[in-house]
Parts: sequence; structure tokens; C-alpha cells
Amino acid sequence: MNTLVSPEGSLEVLSQNEVNRLKSTSENGQHGLLRGCALAVLNCGNHTDDSKAILEQNKNFDIEVIQQDRGVKLKLTQAPASAFVEGAMIRGIREHLSSVLRDIVYVSNEIEHNNRFDLNDPDGITDAIFHILRNAGALKASQKPNLVVCWGGHSISREEYNYTKEVGHELGLRGLNICTGCGPGAMKGPMKGANLAHAKQRIRDGRYLGISEPGIIAAESPNPIVNELVIMPDIEKRLEAFVRTAHGIIVFPGGAGTAEEILYLLGVLLNPENDELPYPVIFTGPENSHQYWQQIDEFIALTLGQKARQRYKIIVNDPESVAREMNSGIDQVEQFRRNNNDAFYFNWRLKISPEFQQPFEPTHENMSNLEIRPDQPPHILAANLRRAFSGIVAGNVKAQGIIAIEKQGPFQIRGNKAIMAPLDALLQSFVSQQRMKLPGSDYNPCYEIVK
Amino acid sequence: MNTLVSPEGSLEVLSQNEVNRLKSTSENGQHGLLRGCALAVLNCGNHTDDSKAILEQNKNFDIEVIQQDRGVKLKLTQAPASAFVEGAMIRGIREHLSSVLRDIVYVSNEIEHNNRFDLNDPDGITDAIFHILRNAGALKASQKPNLVVCWGGHSISREEYNYTKEVGHELGLRGLNICTGCGPGAMKGPMKGANLAHAKQRIRDGRYLGISEPGIIAAESPNPIVNELVIMPDIEKRLEAFVRTAHGIIVFPGGAGTAEEILYLLGVLLNPENDELPYPVIFTGPENSHQYWQQIDEFIALTLGQKARQRYKIIVNDPESVAREMNSGIDQVEQFRRNNNDAFYFNWRLKISPEFQQPFEPTHENMSNLEIRPDQPPHILAANLRRAFSGIVAGNVKAQGIIAIEKQGPFQIRGNKAIMAPLDALLQSFVSQQRMKLPGSDYNPCYEIVK
Amino acid sequence: MNTLVSPEGSLEVLSQNEVNRLKSTSENGQHGLLRGCALAVLNCGNHTDDSKAILEQNKNFDIEVIQQDRGVKLKLTQAPASAFVEGAMIRGIREHLSSVLRDIVYVSNEIEHNNRFDLNDPDGITDAIFHILRNAGALKASQKPNLVVCWGGHSISREEYNYTKEVGHELGLRGLNICTGCGPGAMKGPMKGANLAHAKQRIRDGRYLGISEPGIIAAESPNPIVNELVIMPDIEKRLEAFVRTAHGIIVFPGGAGTAEEILYLLGVLLNPENDELPYPVIFTGPENSHQYWQQIDEFIALTLGQKARQRYKIIVNDPESVAREMNSGIDQVEQFRRNNNDAFYFNWRLKISPEFQQPFEPTHENMSNLEIRPDQPPHILAANLRRAFSGIVAGNVKAQGIIAIEKQGPFQIRGNKAIMAPLDALLQSFVSQQRMKLPGSDYNPCYEIVK
Amino acid sequence: MNTLVSPEGSLEVLSQNEVNRLKSTSENGQHGLLRGCALAVLNCGNHTDDSKAILEQNKNFDIEVIQQDRGVKLKLTQAPASAFVEGAMIRGIREHLSSVLRDIVYVSNEIEHNNRFDLNDPDGITDAIFHILRNAGALKASQKPNLVVCWGGHSISREEYNYTKEVGHELGLRGLNICTGCGPGAMKGPMKGANLAHAKQRIRDGRYLGISEPGIIAAESPNPIVNELVIMPDIEKRLEAFVRTAHGIIVFPGGAGTAEEILYLLGVLLNPENDELPYPVIFTGPENSHQYWQQIDEFIALTLGQKARQRYKIIVNDPESVAREMNSGIDQVEQFRRNNNDAFYFNWRLKISPEFQQPFEPTHENMSNLEIRPDQPPHILAANLRRAFSGIVAGNVKAQGIIAIEKQGPFQIRGNKAIMAPLDALLQSFVSQQRMKLPGSDYNPCYEIVK
Repeated sequence: MNTLVSPEGSLEVLSQNEVNRLKSTSENGQHGLLRGCALAVLNCGNHTDDSKAILEQNKNFDIEVIQQDRGVKLKLTQAPASAFVEGAMIRGIREHLSSVLRDIVYVSNEIEHNNRFDLNDPDGITDAIFHILRNAGALKASQKPNLVVCWGGHSISREEYNYTKEVGHELGLRGLNICTGCGPGAMKGPMKGANLAHAKQRIRDGRYLGISEPGIIAAESPNPIVNELVIMPDIEKRLEAFVRTAHGIIVFPGGAGTAEEILYLLGVLLNPENDELPYPVIFTGPENSHQYWQQIDEFIALTLGQKARQRYKIIVNDPESVAREMNSGIDQVEQFRRNNNDAFYFNWRLKISPEFQQPFEPTHENMSNLEIRPDQPPHILAANLRRAFSGIVAGNVKAQGIIAIEKQGPFQIRGNKAIMAPLDALLQSFVSQQRMKLPGSDYNPCYEIVK
Repeated sequence: MNTLVSPEGSLEVLSQNEVNRLKSTSENGQHGLLRGCALAVLNCGNHTDDSKAILEQNKNFDIEVIQQDRGVKLKLTQAPASAFVEGAMIRGIREHLSSVLRDIVYVSNEIEHNNRFDLNDPDGITDAIFHILRNAGALKASQKPNLVVCWGGHSISREEYNYTKEVGHELGLRGLNICTGCGPGAMKGPMKGANLAHAKQRIRDGRYLGISEPGIIAAESPNPIVNELVIMPDIEKRLEAFVRTAHGIIVFPGGAGTAEEILYLLGVLLNPENDELPYPVIFTGPENSHQYWQQIDEFIALTLGQKARQRYKIIVNDPESVAREMNSGIDQVEQFRRNNNDAFYFNWRLKISPEFQQPFEPTHENMSNLEIRPDQPPHILAANLRRAFSGIVAGNVKAQGIIAIEKQGPFQIRGNKAIMAPLDALLQSFVSQQRMKLPGSDYNPCYEIVK
Repeated sequence: MNTLVSPEGSLEVLSQNEVNRLKSTSENGQHGLLRGCALAVLNCGNHTDDSKAILEQNKNFDIEVIQQDRGVKLKLTQAPASAFVEGAMIRGIREHLSSVLRDIVYVSNEIEHNNRFDLNDPDGITDAIFHILRNAGALKASQKPNLVVCWGGHSISREEYNYTKEVGHELGLRGLNICTGCGPGAMKGPMKGANLAHAKQRIRDGRYLGISEPGIIAAESPNPIVNELVIMPDIEKRLEAFVRTAHGIIVFPGGAGTAEEILYLLGVLLNPENDELPYPVIFTGPENSHQYWQQIDEFIALTLGQKARQRYKIIVNDPESVAREMNSGIDQVEQFRRNNNDAFYFNWRLKISPEFQQPFEPTHENMSNLEIRPDQPPHILAANLRRAFSGIVAGNVKAQGIIAIEKQGPFQIRGNKAIMAPLDALLQSFVSQQRMKLPGSDYNPCYEIVK
Repeated sequence: MNTLVSPEGSLEVLSQNEVNRLKSTSENGQHGLLRGCALAVLNCGNHTDDSKAILEQNKNFDIEVIQQDRGVKLKLTQAPASAFVEGAMIRGIREHLSSVLRDIVYVSNEIEHNNRFDLNDPDGITDAIFHILRNAGALKASQKPNLVVCWGGHSISREEYNYTKEVGHELGLRGLNICTGCGPGAMKGPMKGANLAHAKQRIRDGRYLGISEPGIIAAESPNPIVNELVIMPDIEKRLEAFVRTAHGIIVFPGGAGTAEEILYLLGVLLNPENDELPYPVIFTGPENSHQYWQQIDEFIALTLGQKARQRYKIIVNDPESVAREMNSGIDQVEQFRRNNNDAFYFNWRLKISPEFQQPFEPTHENMSNLEIRPDQPPHILAANLRRAFSGIVAGNVKAQGIIAIEKQGPFQIRGNKAIMAPLDALLQSFVSQQRMKLPGSDYNPCYEIVK
């Protein structure tokens, strides 16, 4: 499809200056970024998580910003047909395209090339995240706490997928909204379930918030149900955006990405300054997930200790209990924020230390230099384990990571045997359960555990 | 659950007189009717189509209209728990309850006990149907033609069900709305699909119109997605409501009820006065429905003749083509109505002759007196065959019918062998494909073909 | 102006039957009524209160209902140009035209030619009034008590007019809505003031409810600010509509019509069954109205007694106090209705006895037969005095009354001297203050006091 | 009144950083500015145009920004009572207060203390103006050209005031919106008229845009009808905001400020680059304004020449013609912008040369150094005359100007006799017609013409 589309819902009143900047931003420095994210958004109906393959299959795809005094238009060349119905782009996708443009331009101009935000300072990073979210309209002043972040694998079984829909349905029946990483699997199911439940409850303004980042978006293309899409600059800011907007978090079974998220969350919550902060976290899955959660639970106990285990509940095969538990957890969050006169829409009070904020680049060198030892403080160990999983995700599905692995072979992950053995077992089980990548091809591990 | 609920969305400003009438209507003559319909609506999450069994299981359920000067309230005793979330009735169900009350009262007071409508006159019947639909808010003045009626079985396979969702999804992506009989199976799938597609297209006012009648509603309890519910007084008025509000009709595989609908529709369209009227009709199903439709097609050819076959298209396993075909058919309907200055919201021009309008009561006597002969004019034969299938539906799932069969044994259906043989084969295939009733029990035919 | 307009905001989904009835209603029995009311509505910019003269000036004006299957249109011939801006009818006036049609048809078909309402029975009359108001959408279920009825002269001085605007402004600043008889003078000023105040308070759904009747509407043509217009069948039902929808009443200086309203209201409130009912009533005017109110007050004391004087407060030249007093009176009304579980939108509990409900036809015979004696019970005397003033209004401004006076000379009003003398004085002061008719012509009294 | 109010309608989701900045901005550098503007807004009901006197009368008034994690609140001390009704601030005023805060902070942080805008460069100034207006939500992407700027005196006769209301009424009936300097007189009348007309046409989103600047706002306190208020940093940016957002301009009689506006507008339109630009300008007033406009017209002919006279039409005493003429002028503007693909909401194409953009500070020295000679190019002469009138406005009503005059005596305005004589005559007539200041005190000229 070659077409000219108007961005929907923002970017409407631009100065001549801004249109020029947009054009030049997209022509020069940011063009590759814009093209990649736009392609991911347009590609939403197609089932693959190999970012590199998607780019190769669509190598003739292009996007160009056309300047018009009365606004901007986007010129698309060889866009994936699945984004269109009878020649017209699905409105949800048109909105996503506009969100992509909005966030890339905002991050480039207002965050990265503006000395207002000190990105080496924890407060500066948090402030930047706040501004990106606010600019995207994702911070709602008037709403009571009701946003449940759902994490879990993009590659899950039909049974697990149906279970995520049921949980979403129960959450939606209780008026709760959903935020996910906005790809397939556990990121799509809860939104579908909640959308149906919101229809039953006649809730017209249900929120389905997707938070992505440029590296992952191609592998986790946002479903058009997502009615608010935000592209954070990197995985660490994406994780911080999740935990600061969430009023509670539900984790479904998943692979390396899910493990990364769990370690990030627990690492943050282990910070003593967060001890008094109510933060409902539930791990859940269908009947057959008992063993999966047991393994995760044991790995956490081993690595982060008993204190970390206090921070979550495991509920198996009971969507209604999950929703009820989450609901009452959120009631406590609301009460706490009222007592402290805290904002509902952004968790300023949550303390996140620098090792969880600084971007980690998963090069072969950085991966092999990770220090994973039991004698570290739990939150440092959590941070390093998080980085290890983050690298594996990159090697599995991110274009850059895949290329690096093709060139240099698998990452070497070193560490103390006491941790490496159960880590290896965990990763093995992800592989054997087909959680690493979408089924359809054999999985070649992108890592080696060097015990 | 014992509770007191306020009806939602209508019945808000009532005169003292009306509240009294409502109370006495529901206490005396109409109480059984109200109780039955209310139970059906509240029972929506439970999977059974045996109206008699539902009534027996809930024999302690009761509903009472409570008068208050500032409005009315409904007092429910032992209501099914599935209608509630955390003690609050699901809003969609609360609206359905209000719709039930509204229609029962309106039909009783304004239609049946009011000399304004001559229910023995074809125009009087049509006028009554118009008023019931308008009173329910189902006639929208400002909308372009976009209402697709979907018919099909309540008891269908998972594959067929998924197919109906996909068709609904494609219709919804094109901005079309759905009207069904509002039970499970083919009546629910298209609404779910369209609801999801409407979310993707950011259509907030999608319509999911359910048209039921007191005899069938228990077996085909409305799903809460239905956001407009109308209870017509009997099956014939329900069928007329379908064909006068539809801008096009899609039929999925089904059993006796679906056959009844097909025969009604084709019988009406065969009327020479309707020859010039555009009316898109599509029969469709998944890959494995080829044979099903072939059998139906042959039965129609045999009984109603070639002219009837011109009135529909069969499209197998291609949801996108179904939607595209329907869309272009509706364009023709719109053009025709514009040219003739006809209303969009009600098909006044469609000619329906009295044999399709007069209520048929499926007693054993009436059933065995049906004349089914090839030497009849096709529309008379269609009318009689329609009645035969209508009786079988009653014997299968309607409380009164089930009781009659229990007492007097199966209906005797007589007729000319040339028709009886293929009819028998058709019914046999419905039985063997489990289309007669929801799976879970052996099916004992409620009829005997007397060749 | 000759033009074809679509009625706005109702009458949208009509049955073929109803369109026919509308057409024939307007062609036959009701055509004169429709034409007269439509002319009044279209004539709103022109300053005269002589109904007969208006009809004569526009004797070529005509209105016709045109049937179209997709709705109705109104064909206007030689309509007053003041209703149009650049060839398009002002939208407010288009809505009024639609309201006129709606009410004439409803009253004719559903009230007068329908045995459902017994118009000889007090409850039947009240029920009919409720239905007319509800059909007009004038009963709002969800609003708290906030409707202030403002009465007063159509022919008042500039100073008095400005004062009514100021009172309306103070009411509007407090979120109160306005209902009047919808003509000029004291019926327009409060709406203008409230409209401005609502803009200041950003109240977008302010109500400006006009209640008229066919006999008076030509003399009191509704200003387009009126955003809800209801045409009651006669003056008595109009008065009942006022007192049952009002949450409080403010009376400005006026002439015979205002005196009629005051006597009606006090007569009703004197009914012992209404003793406990809170009902705020304020008489007010600018600085120079002291004497006017003193005269009224004395006349009430003389005729209806001290008890009647307890029912109102006189506040001169203090808009803010008027608004504050009204506001706190309405708070009591709200509390009372809550305690009694009464509707907010209709005062069912107010007792109105038959002598205030039965239409009074002001023929010469009826006028001279009125019994006005001090030895009657106060509410009977109030009823008869009300009729006397009603007749004078008819003789002053209603087409029928003017013609009767032209033919038969002034009405003879007889009665006991003790009442006749102050009555005469009151009427004389109305004449000398130019309150009887709009200035511009000499006033010839349409009555003679026969002492 | 001492009270705590929440700003309304913006400033809702602030970062902790921004709240701090707001607080410190308002405590330190900007506190005087904020206090002055807030007082002006709160003072809207009081009739005086002497900024210095207002500040003196309210010397105990104070405003403080209170930090709360969930937002900001404003603490007011001894606020004028006229801003409140029953203890609650009128919502329109609350919105104005929020607008004041928004613009002061935005201008301070984003315009003045940010190197993004080069305020010495014409394009930089225009860009800054665009951003201030956009940040205020005053640029509407989706609206067709419909914004009429109305200029004219704050001190005008009752007859003139009523005329401005009538013109506003005719504009409003045609769906046009109003923008003024938002004070009394000719700045309030058109808005009142349009507000009433919008009610008649059922236009709910009518715009009443007020554009002010800190120096003048106290003298021209915004009426609460203003539903969009923007505070530009200085008079020159305010004038540019007027001419770039206007789709047409109407000028009513006025004094020095009106003369300043006329000279600015004609000076800009005389720029040859604007020759092809359609820009409807109408000078109008009631019957008795003939002579006034003749004098103005002659002064323009004398100083700016015949070409300037082509740019406006004079229409006396005909509100309907004014509205019709403006309407058709705006049609041409729309056509022109469509042809050139120009934005509707901001007139980028209008060329404004630096002498009209650079702020002029009316000190005694600057005033006496103005060069006013017939041998200058017309636009330079226009610019200098504009500055002369601007100084007189300051000396009349702005606090700083009044103080300077009190200390140093009247400004000396020098220039060529051929211009000075008619200028003197013009100013004399402003004085004698009481256009310089609101009536109530003797006017002592703040200038001397040195011929």
C-alpha cells in the first residue's frame, strides 16, 4: 500500500518551525528510528517476533513527513496491507502512527537535545519520564487509581492466553484498566478480556495503555485495541514508566523478558525506602502453571531472599480471586496516596536507585562482564540478573541483538555456580516451553552459561 | 442474591398512574411473563438452553416492582449470582432488566389492551412492531444503513463459533453494526467480533441489538454485550422486526431455528411485490460447512424453487469476502432508499403477507394439520415449512413445548413424501451434528416425520 | 419568506400512520391552531401584543405539513422575515416550530381524543398535564430542584425590565434556571440575565423554559432564548403546569395577567391541604415599585385575608436578596421532597381544587355572572377574581376576546362594593401605568366595573 | 475575602519540579506581575480604569501559590468580594485566574528564559506569539475562519455601547466568534451581543477570546463572559496576536487606544508584501458617529495616504450590513487560505516589520524623541504615530505611566505642524467626548502637543 495519511489526535497545531524540525528530524538523525517504529505499528496483524526478519521482509517500506502549512501528512510507501481495511488505515493504527511520531520527536527535541533534563541524575531521569508520559496524555488528573500493569510472555500457549483474557475480563468487570507492553500473548489477552468486560459494564472510556520502546516494538507490535501508546526511549525508562504509572502489577508466565521485569520490580521494591509503600503484585497462571511459578519462586528465594517473597502473591487458576485481590490492593494504594497527598497518576514516592535507571547496552563485552554473585546486596544482584535477562531478550528478538549474535556467537554469562545452575535450569525450561520465541522455528540459544 | 435494583436508562419519569399500572401489571396478569424474562436476562452466564429446567432450578427466584414516588425499584429474590460482580449487578444486565420491564408493559398496555392497533390487519401488525421498536429506542433517525442481522445456531461447534467471531470482526472493521437473536453461539460470536473491531476503529457507539421474545429468551439468554434489547410479543413479530430493521442478513449454520428463519426470509422475499427490493442475504460458515450449505441449498431448490436461490449467496470460509459483499449490498440498499425517499431505520416497503404475520401456536393438533405439499405456491409452502420448524424449536427448548411433548409425545409432521424425505434427512443431520440442543445430554427428537 | 424547513429535535422517527395523522390534523381540525401558534413563534422579533392585528397583518401566511417517507417537512408561505438570518431560520425558532407541532398533535391525539385521560376529573387533568410536559421533555429526572418561575407584565418600563434582568442574573449566578410565560417584558428579562450569568459560570445546559397556550402565544411570542417551549391546551392547564414544575416563584410588577397569576397561586396555596408544603414566593421590583406592591398587598389582605399574606415576601430593589431568599427557599423544597420521597420534577403533592382547574371561558355572559363577594371562602373568591382578571386579559390581547369586545362592548364585572372599589382602583392604576397593553396606542378598557 | 482556590482547566498535571518553579516564580521575580494581573481579573465587576488607584485600593490583596503534591492551589488574601457569589468564586473568574498563572509562568520560563526564541528576530517574535497562543489553547485546528476582532473605546456612551451589542448580536447570529481586548465598553458589548445570539442559534461552543497584557489588564479587567483569556507579554505582542488570529476586524469609536490600534493595523497592511492578502476591516458606530469617522478618515488620508483608505470600509448605524460585510470578507479569507494551503488559526503570511514588533517604552524621553514628519514613508509614520498614542494610553490609565506623569508632567509630543495640528484636534475631540478615561473625574491631559 502506498498512501498519504494524516496523523490522528495530536500534532494538529504546529508552528512552521516545528514542522521543519519534524521533517528534518525524520529525514536525518531519526529517520531509521521512525521507519522502524512505524513499520512495527503497521505490522500489527502479522505473527512474528523476529525484528530483523520484519525489517528484511519490508525493506522497501518507507515513511516520509510531508510539510503542509495546514499541518503534516505522512507518506507511506509499500506499507503492510494488514493495516488497512478497504483501502483505509484502521483508525487505531493511524493513532499509533501519530503516537510514534509524537514520542520520537518529543524525546529527540525536548529530552535528549535540551539541557533541561539531566539524564545522569536520578531525579532528572524520572522527570524526563514524567514529561514523556504527560506529553502523551497518559497521566490523567481526574481518575482514581485503577491502572493494572500486566506482564507476561509474548509467546504463550493457547491455554495460558485464554487465561490472561479471563483475568482481564474479571479486572474489566471491576472497572479496572489495563497497561501492558502492547505486543501479543500476555500483553494482548488482558486487554481483549477487559475490552469485552468494559462493554458489558458500559464503560466507554476504558484505557488500554501500551508502553513500548524502539528496540522491542517490532517484536511486540501494538494491537489496535491499545488506545494509548507511548514509546519510551529505552528499556530502562520503559520499566520505570510501568512501575510509576501502575497501581498494581499482575505477572503471567513468560520467558526472559518476563524474568527481566520480575527482577526489576522486586529489585526496586527491595529498596528499604520503599518498605512502607503498598504495591500489589500478583503472579498468576492457569492450572498447569503451578510448577512454573514454583520454579520462579524458588529462584527468587535463592537469589533475592525471603524479603523479596513478601512482595508478591501467587494465585493459580483463579481469575476472580486475582481481580478481587488486585482490587483490594489498589484500595490500599488509594488510601496511602490520599493520606500522603500524593498524585494518583504518577508514583513519585517510589525510590528507584541508579543501577535500575542507567541504560544497559547488551554488548558481548558488557554481558560477559556482568557480576553475578551471591555475596552482593540483593538489589545489586537483582540489577545484574535483570541485565542478563535483558541481554537475552535482545539476542532473541531485537534486530541489533540478533545481528550481534550472528556475528559474534552467543553471549557468555558468567557467575557464581550457586546461581548459574538454577539460572541455567530456568532458561532451559523457558526454551523447552517455547517461551523464548514464537513457535514456528527451532530456538538456538543466544547465550551460554559459563559456570 | 436478594437485592433491590433501579432500572437503568428508561422508566425514569413515570406518572403515579403508570407506576401503579406497572405494579399491578407485574403483580397480576404479567407477573409470570416478567419473572420468566427477568430470569432469562439474569441467567446469562449459565450454559443451558432448556427453558423448563432453568425455571425449575430457579423456582425460588422472584421479582417484584416496588413503588416509590421518585421512581420504581425492582426487588429480586434469589437471583442467579452470575449477574453480579462484587455484589453489584453488571450494568449491561441492569439495562436488560429495564428493557424487559419496558417492553412487557408497553406491549401489554399500548399494544394489546389499546384499540389503536388492529392486530388482525397486516398494516396494524406492522404498525405495532414499529411502535414497539421505536419505544425501545431501536430506530435511529440519523444513522446511515449499517445494521446486519446475523442468524445461526445457538448450539454450534467451536470452529463455527470462531468463524462467526471473525465475520463479526470484519463487519465491525467496516463500521457495520450487529443485530441477532441475542443468545449464545452464532448470536453471540458476531457481536464479540464486532465489539473488538469497533474498539480498533475507535467506534464508541457500536450497536449490538438483540431481538427476542418471551418464549425463546430463556433458551437464548442475552449476552451483556447486547446494548439494545427488545422483547417482541411473539416469534412472528420478532421475525418481522428482524427483516424490517435489517439492511442485510447473514446466516451461519444452525438447526431448526435457523431453518425457520431461512424459510421465513425467503418466503417473504419470494413475494412478487418484493422483486425489485435490494436485500443482501449471505449464507456462510467455516471450511467444513460446504456440505451443510449444499444440503440447505438443495432443500430450498426442491421446495421453493430456483427463484428463491437467486436471493442469497453462499460464501464458505472467507470472512473478508462476506463483509465486503455485505457492505456493497448495503450500499445498494442505501441508494434504493434514497431514490425512493424511504426511511433508513425501518423497511416499510417490504411486503409481508398475512401467513407470515399471524402467530402460529405449535400445538400437537396444529402441527399435525400443517399442509406440506409441492403443489402449493412456493410462499405458502415456505410459510408452512416455517411453522413446522417453529414447532420443532418449541418442542426442543421452549418450556411450554417441552411440557407438551412430555405429556403427548412427539409432534406428528405429515406431508408429501417428495418433501418429507429430504426434510427428514435435513432434520437428521441437525440431530447428528448436535445442532438441536446444546451438547451435554442425549437428544430425543420432539417430532416424527409421517411420510 | 417562502421556505421548506425540517422540524428540529423531535418528530424524527414517525410511523406512516402518524405522518398521515399529522398531515390531516393540520389540514383539518387543527390547521387554524397550528397556523396561529406557528405565526406567533415566527413573529418573535416584532413588538406588538395585539393578536388580532398580528393575524391581520399576516393574513397571507400559511403553514403546511409535507409528507415524506423519511420524515415531515413544513412548508411556510410568507413567513415573517424576522425569523431568518441570511435566508436560514434561526435555529431556536426552528426548534420552537417543532415544539408547537409536537404539542398540538400530542394534545389533539393523545389527550383530547383518547379516553385515557378523564378531563373532568382533577386527577385526570393533572395526569394529562404531566404527560404533555413529559412528552415535551420538560421533566428532567436527574436534576436537583432549581427551576424558578418568573411572572410579571409583558408591558413594563425600561427600569422594571432592567431590574428583571438583574434578578435573572443573580439567579443564574447561583445556578438556578428560569421558567416564564415566554413573551416580552418580565418574561424575557430574567432569561436574558440568567443566560449571561450562566455564561459567566460556564453552565452550558441552562434551562429557559417557556410555557404558553394557544390563546396568548401570539401576544407573548417566545423569545429564541427559550430553549424549551411547551404549549399547554388552555390557560388553566398552563397555570397548573407553572405551579407544578416550579420550585419557587418570583413575581414582578405587571397588569391583569400578573394579577390573575397571583390570585391563582394564592388561591391554591390557601387550600388547607397545602399548608405544610414549602413554596417560596417573592414579589419584587425596582425602587419605584414600593407603591405598586403596597397596593397589591392591601388588595390581597382585603380579599384573601392575612393567611394569604403569609405565603409571600415582598423585597424591593434588591436582586441579590431576592436570589438568596429564593435559593434558601428551594433548599427547603428539596429537603421536603427528599423527606417525602417526592419527585423533584413535578409537584404531585400540591392540591389544586376543581375551581382552579376547570377552563373558564370569558364570554360576556360568564363574565357578568361571576360572583365576587366578601362572604365567600377565600379560595372561592380567589378563583372568581382570577376568572375576572383572566377575562380582562382576553379582552385586552387575545384575538377572540378583542373581537367579542368589538362586537358586544366591554365586559360587565359585578360584585360587592367592598371589593369592587379597590378592584377598580387597581385596574385604574394598571391602565395609568400602561401595564394593560404595550405602549403605542390609547388603551380602551375592555371591562366596566358595575359596583 | 480570604480563600483557597484551585486553578481551573489547566495546570492539572504538574511535575514536582514545575510546582517548585511556579512557587518560586511567583514568590520572586514574577510575584508583582502575578499579583497585579490576578487583582485585575478579580476586580472585574468594578468600574474604574485607573490602574494605580485599583492597586492602592487593594493594597492588602495578596496571592500565593501553595504547593501540594496532588497539584497547586492559590491562596488569596483580601480578594475583591465582587468575584464571589455566596462565597464561591465565579467559575469564569476562576478560569481567568488560572489563565493568568499559566501565561505568566509560560512566558517567564519558556519564552523569556529559554534560548529557543530569539526575541530580536522578527520570526522569533512571531514564533513566540504562536507558542503563547497555542499553550493557551487559543489556536483551534478544526474550526473554519470565524473569529472577528472587535476594537473600540473602553469609555463610550450608552448609545455607542448598545450599538456594539447589536453588532455582536448580528455577528453571533451568523455563527461568528468574538475576540477583543476584554475590558468594558466596546470590548464587552460585542461579546454580550454574540453570547445572546449564540444562545438563540443554539451554538454552545461560542468563543469569547480576550487578549490582554499586564500593563493594561487592570484598566481593562476581563468580563467573565470571556471564555478564553490570554495575557501577552507586552502591547506589541498583544497587537500582533490580534492581527494574526483575526479573520477580520471591526473598529468602534474609541480614544487613544483605538487610534493606536488603527494605526498599527493600517501600518501593517500598508506593507507591500501584504497587498494581496484579503483582510476585512470595518469602522462602524451608531448614527451619531458620522463625524467621528469622518475625522479619523481625514486624519488617515492626511498621514498615511489614499492607499491606507482602501483597506477599510466605514459603515454607520447598520449592524446587519456590518455583519454581512464581515461575513463575506471572511469567506474570501477562507478561500485565500485554502488556495494557499495556509493555516486557518494563525495568519503566518501577514508580514509585520520590526518597527511594529519591537516594544516601545513610553518614557518622557522616548516620547519627546518620536519623529513625526510627513516626509517619512507611510508605514514609518504609522509606526511612530502608533507609539505616540500608545504613550498617551499609558499616561492615561497604566499605573507606571500615571506615576511618571505625576512626577515629570505631561509627555511632550513634537512633530511637523502639518500633522500636529490635526493630531491635536483629534486628541481634543477624544477629550471632549470623554473617550480618554471613564467618566467620573476631570481629565487632565497627560501630553502636550509641541507644534
